[in-house]
Amino acid sequence: MQIAVLLYDRFTALDAVGPYEVLGRIPGAEVVFAAARPGPVRTDQGTLAVTADAALSEVTSPDVLLVPGGPGTADVLADPATLDWIRRVDAGTTWTTSVCSGSLLLGAAGLLEGRRATSHWVSLEHLPAFGAVPTAERVVVDGKYATAAGVSAGIDLALELTGRIAGDETARAIQLVVEYDPRPPYDAGSVATAPAGLVAALRASDLVVGAP
Amino acid sequence: MQIAVLLYDRFTALDAVGPYEVLGRIPGAEVVFAAARPGPVRTDQGTLAVTADAALSEVTSPDVLLVPGGPGTADVLADPATLDWIRRVDAGTTWTTSVCSGSLLLGAAGLLEGRRATSHWVSLEHLPAFGAVPTAERVVVDGKYATAAGVSAGIDLALELTGRIAGDETARAIQLVVEYDPRPPYDAGSVATAPAGLVAALRASDLVVGAP
Repeated sequence: MQIAVLLYDRFTALDAVGPYEVLGRIPGAEVVFAAARPGPVRTDQGTLAVTADAALSEVTSPDVLLVPGGPGTADVLADPATLDWIRRVDAGTTWTTSVCSGSLLLGAAGLLEGRRATSHWVSLEHLPAFGAVPTAERVVVDGKYATAAGVSAGIDLALELTGRIAGDETARAIQLVVEYDPRPPYDAGSVATAPAGLVAALRASDLVVGAP
Repeated sequence: MQIAVLLYDRFTALDAVGPYEVLGRIPGAEVVFAAARPGPVRTDQGTLAVTADAALSEVTSPDVLLVPGGPGTADVLADPATLDWIRRVDAGTTWTTSVCSGSLLLGAAGLLEGRRATSHWVSLEHLPAFGAVPTAERVVVDGKYATAAGVSAGIDLALELTGRIAGDETARAIQLVVEYDPRPPYDAGSVATAPAGLVAALRASDLVVGAP
């Protein structure tokens, strides 16, 4: 089972690495990080680079596609070659998935027409432009399309997928291996629980997560 | 404020990238990924490489040190040069931190003598060999030494540290930016909640997280 993770300049690191840490531990899984050009790809903060081992042209039939989000989605939305690649490999996937504003890229590739999908809370409002039904849940599965909310939600998405791909027992084993028993010291992780003033301040800030 | 993240062959990706995603967003923070030699460093699964932008020799006085864990800790435990570096930079840090079996490296550097510390649940039993007091909590802070349990616990550690470094308001803002409102679909993330048979099976397996 090949799992392809799309990389592009200014993606958000945890969007890709969270799911990789879980999905890559499924017995028989082979993860490939792929970008327009192989080599190091800089994440949104600029101080981290992750290596794309393959060019997109070398990855033609992954079983699972994972598209991370990040400020760089704005550039990919204007890049027909990468959107074409997403559309082309999607034709053969068992699962096509995204984290954060990565769902905007699935949308721009024409894959979310009429489907329920989620995204980073800041990006959710842009989904209807692609015919998708914005759904403010942490993980949304509609057919073979599985989308996750912002950044850290990719870990929950990956455990959900692992259960569907390899069974509950394997998913539980991987959860224990990565000791995923989260205990956030604050309760500000969603717009529903964060102070309203904080939500408003961040909406008004230059927090850009790939708005088209 | 400089935050140095130690990289070494076969570290666990999420141990480093989870905290980076949070700590790197503290206003004024500058994260540097450092390894014995600069360049791509392979993670434990082998299919991901993260770039070390600096050599250890170039990083002499970080304010915060973060040491990830992973199967590769076994090699670092036998590498006096890297342990020396940890000890040397620790002399000037405000916070010295670890995720997962990274605490064994802090221990081997002589930094946890008489201190409470945690680690991946599989590695916890090795802490007393370094004079540390194994403490089965998700995040343990003893003086300037902050250690996290396995892999995903680094995200909780980083939020805790962010609050102490930059205040609760900044920590809450970053939690919302990375939408850290975890909803694991299973409840097997700790030895306390996972099925006993699963815990025993993993203990008996080749799951090696840096035992010395």
